[in-house]
Amino acid sequence: MVQAVRWEQGALSLLDQRLLPHEVKYVTCADYRQTAKAIADMIVRGAPAIGISGGYGLALAAFEAADRFKASGDSGEDSAAEHFLKHAASVLISARPTAVNLSWAVERVLGKTLSALAQGGITHAAQAALEEARAIELEDVEANRRIGMHGAALIRPGSAIMTHCNAGALATGGWGTALGVIRQARAENKVTMVYANETRPWLQGARLTAWELMQDGIPVTLLADSAAGYIMSLGKVDAVVVGADRIAANGDVANKIGTYTLACLCKYHDIPFYVAAPVSTFDLSLACGRQIKIEERSEQEVLEFMGKPVAPAGARAFNPSFDVTPAELISAIITEKGTVFPPLEKHISAVVK
Amino acid sequence: MVQAVRWEQGALSLLDQRLLPHEVKYVTCADYRQTAKAIADMIVRGAPAIGISGGYGLALAAFEAADRFKASGDSGEDSAAEHFLKHAASVLISARPTAVNLSWAVERVLGKTLSALAQGGITHAAQAALEEARAIELEDVEANRRIGMHGAALIRPGSAIMTHCNAGALATGGWGTALGVIRQARAENKVTMVYANETRPWLQGARLTAWELMQDGIPVTLLADSAAGYIMSLGKVDAVVVGADRIAANGDVANKIGTYTLACLCKYHDIPFYVAAPVSTFDLSLACGRQIKIEERSEQEVLEFMGKPVAPAGARAFNPSFDVTPAELISAIITEKGTVFPPLEKHISAVVK
Repeated sequence: MVQAVRWEQGALSLLDQRLLPHEVKYVTCADYRQTAKAIADMIVRGAPAIGISGGYGLALAAFEAADRFKASGDSGEDSAAEHFLKHAASVLISARPTAVNLSWAVERVLGKTLSALAQGGITHAAQAALEEARAIELEDVEANRRIGMHGAALIRPGSAIMTHCNAGALATGGWGTALGVIRQARAENKVTMVYANETRPWLQGARLTAWELMQDGIPVTLLADSAAGYIMSLGKVDAVVVGADRIAANGDVANKIGTYTLACLCKYHDIPFYVAAPVSTFDLSLACGRQIKIEERSEQEVLEFMGKPVAPAGARAFNPSFDVTPAELISAIITEKGTVFPPLEKHISAVVK
Repeated sequence: MVQAVRWEQGALSLLDQRLLPHEVKYVTCADYRQTAKAIADMIVRGAPAIGISGGYGLALAAFEAADRFKASGDSGEDSAAEHFLKHAASVLISARPTAVNLSWAVERVLGKTLSALAQGGITHAAQAALEEARAIELEDVEANRRIGMHGAALIRPGSAIMTHCNAGALATGGWGTALGVIRQARAENKVTMVYANETRPWLQGARLTAWELMQDGIPVTLLADSAAGYIMSLGKVDAVVVGADRIAANGDVANKIGTYTLACLCKYHDIPFYVAAPVSTFDLSLACGRQIKIEERSEQEVLEFMGKPVAPAGARAFNPSFDVTPAELISAIITEKGTVFPPLEKHISAVVK
């Protein structure tokens, strides 16, 4: 299976998802600055994959600190290293604001690195940073496998499943969250068709999800985003499964723009609407979805396509990259620690501590 | 104001809407075959504009018949002319299947032409055909003005209005149906912003509606289609106004793909959902929307973006060009003869005879 994030020869190697499906090319990030830029520029995307990349980005910062501040044991140097690492962490975290997995992973690696620094100096800390980043990656793949098992149990045989954006192997350490559910359900012979919304403006559905599923021989049909309602009205969709970028304590879910529209449509058509995400996606510091910061990206993403203008010169656009789906529209949140059923607010604490 | 359909120097001149907003170029249709092809290829689009073009297309056929079958008064020649005209009408009508205005206009011109043929021969009939096509065009502009007046009465001051696709001057003889309502409401100082959905796959919103409104200095913001739900959830949309391609006797409306999704979203958010269309859009021969034939266009329109492939080679897509919005989701249908309020099925007969 395709791997979007790889640690190779002391550097972070990212599959450039802007070039898919036409070109499979990896980009090397040799330091945390390049890593932050790669995240901001969407060379890597998908909340878990962004988190894994951020973790490795901080490992790169730790190795840079080890080079710069070699006199470990010297408390002045260690303090400079700590300052450097904290700055690197904040640069990485601010690369994209909505996915909580990014800050979760960076802070986890930072914590491990700083305690190793205090115990054994910066060179030791750099090794600890890399080990923690690797652990996050491996745990994510394992979490996806479990999400897939839990989610597939919800899918009835003979189902056509709609998904949005790409919550697949490309968005994670491997296997995928929403696509992990679909992969597992397909392995259990339950899935007859996947409807992938193309997901303007970035076309992750057309470029990434279709590509990823076709590589695995899973039947997939692309749709313009606006056709989702019509195809539901024809009775052709048995369930919708999407990923998540941040989930508030009450179960409100931030995910790719268009997710909320699908949830409203599912409500109207009485179709189950499932969210698949690792527990690292929960942000219990936020009471509800209104507190989630929604990234607005450049108007040009809507006004242009692959650098070609589609709208008149001088036209304006509104380009929120995410939206918030309220808990009451969600049939279940599928995590690696089990499936959370409504009322979500009451049941989330059983899987997320 | 821009004019999409013009009769000039004995031929039909169509603004090539595939080239907008980057190029303003008119294409000449010298006969009915070129007219049918221009309709099928979407050089001209929008139900009323297609109808007007079809009417002129039949006038072109009548002039061609006058050239071919000059011996008017000879019943054999007149019968050949009649056969030719009926064939031309069927070719024009089958150019696009969903918009009823096309068959309505072509059959209206055909009826006038055949009765003129019986009375005064083919040369006389050709003049009658042209006069009838012109009448349809002028009546459409007048109908749009009235639709605008009736629709603007429904808009509250300070409104932001969302529209989909292009139901503007470009889609009609002039002024527009949905955009006619917006133009009139703007003239009455009621409209603060127009949200135009880009309308994949053909991007009529980005290419046509934004262009048309910007030419008139009406403020417009483009959105990816999937952002409609989110922006409604923010409380930023006060009404949705769209056009129609065919309306069944019970008030079910076929319109551009994505219209149904917007109607579901309006229901969920308690936002008025208005359809603006001339009475020629009603097809009382159809009891309900399930009987409306929905055109499916080439998969390439979804698999490509402005001619550039976006999906992997071999990917499949589903590309319905229209959807059906059931009457119960519609707040009102605005026609030139008055506004139809729910229950639509009961009230339609008062304006459409």
